[in-house]
Amino acid sequence: MQLLLIHSDYIEYEVKKSTPVAEKIEDSFKQGRLEEALTAFIAVEKVDEANVEGAISKAVEEIKSVATQVKAENIMVYPYAHLSSDLSSPKAGVAILKGIEDALSGEFIVKRAPFGWYKAFKISCKGHPLSELSRSIIPDESTGAESSTCGEVVKEEVVSEALKAESTAKS
Amino acid sequence: MQLLLIHSDYIEYEVKKSTPVAEKIEDSFKQGRLEEALTAFIAVEKVDEANVEGAISKAVEEIKSVATQVKAENIMVYPYAHLSSDLSSPKAGVAILKGIEDALSGEFIVKRAPFGWYKAFKISCKGHPLSELSRSIIPDESTGAESSTCGEVVKEEVVSEALKAESTAKS
Ligand SMILES: [Mg+2]
Repeated sequence: MQLLLIHSDYIEYEVKKSTPVAEKIEDSFKQGRLEEALTAFIAVEKVDEANVEGAISKAVEEIKSVATQVKAENIMVYPYAHLSSDLSSPKAGVAILKGIEDALSGEFIVKRAPFGWYKAFKISCKGHPLSELSRSIIPDESTGAESSTCGEVVKEEVVSEALKAESTAKS
Repeated sequence: MQLLLIHSDYIEYEVKKSTPVAEKIEDSFKQGRLEEALTAFIAVEKVDEANVEGAISKAVEEIKSVATQVKAENIMVYPYAHLSSDLSSPKAGVAILKGIEDALSGEFIVKRAPFGWYKAFKISCKGHPLSELSRSIIPDESTGAESSTCGEVVKEEVVSEALKAESTAKS
């Protein structure tokens, strides 16, 4: 799974058009907005299909950790295929995104943008050093329902990731 | 090079803090905004260093093609490290981003956001099927200055890419 986490003044979306794999949605789900939110752009990948529960649990752990650091109480779970060239099936993608939404909902105000729709969106990224972070997650190969505490790949520590900005650390 | 192209009602940025590899910039470059623009989020990769001119020319070709399709006359060149885990050196990154800016400037109104700065940004994505497209570009291995017409990897055709949305085509 690829995550791009943006600490946002606001994030809003509105569905425009369905794709062939669009999730069936209620009218109330056709648009959404959160203020002062951590926006989690997420690409669910093939590798996540081998351990759906593990993928959900590792993603939730990362999102919670960053939300706590930036003191965000609101989280937007936003499907974003363009973060990966090795996407999961749509079915697994929807299941994992819903699982992440559900797991976060106890502690945060959570909205999820629908899967498989062309959407207009507006976002305002705050711009502080922790306001744009990316994470790669690889769940254990276990197909059981136990969540894993291993197998996670965090590209860098939060601080060095923050320093990455649009650069590398090798200057 | 990884490209994420967003057809935007507006895109604006404001620098917040320099990183150790920040480009030195004039005050006038510290913020910028374009309306009705194609925003090109770009991660320059190690592979681009072997043929800087070729990488620039293939990127310019892709950006021009999409700008023409969506009828955008304004282009924002925006460095975005989070699109790749195999980034070029900062020096090559800046050179290639400037090269793309210069090459597009004849035909379009172009702004470029500075490299190596934490930036706040606001964007509004239009949401039509061609308003979010991603491209991977690999230049020829030639180290000469000749631009190449081969070696480009377009993940999918524009139409199927558009259909990708947050899904795969395998449903
Ligand atoms: Mg409009």
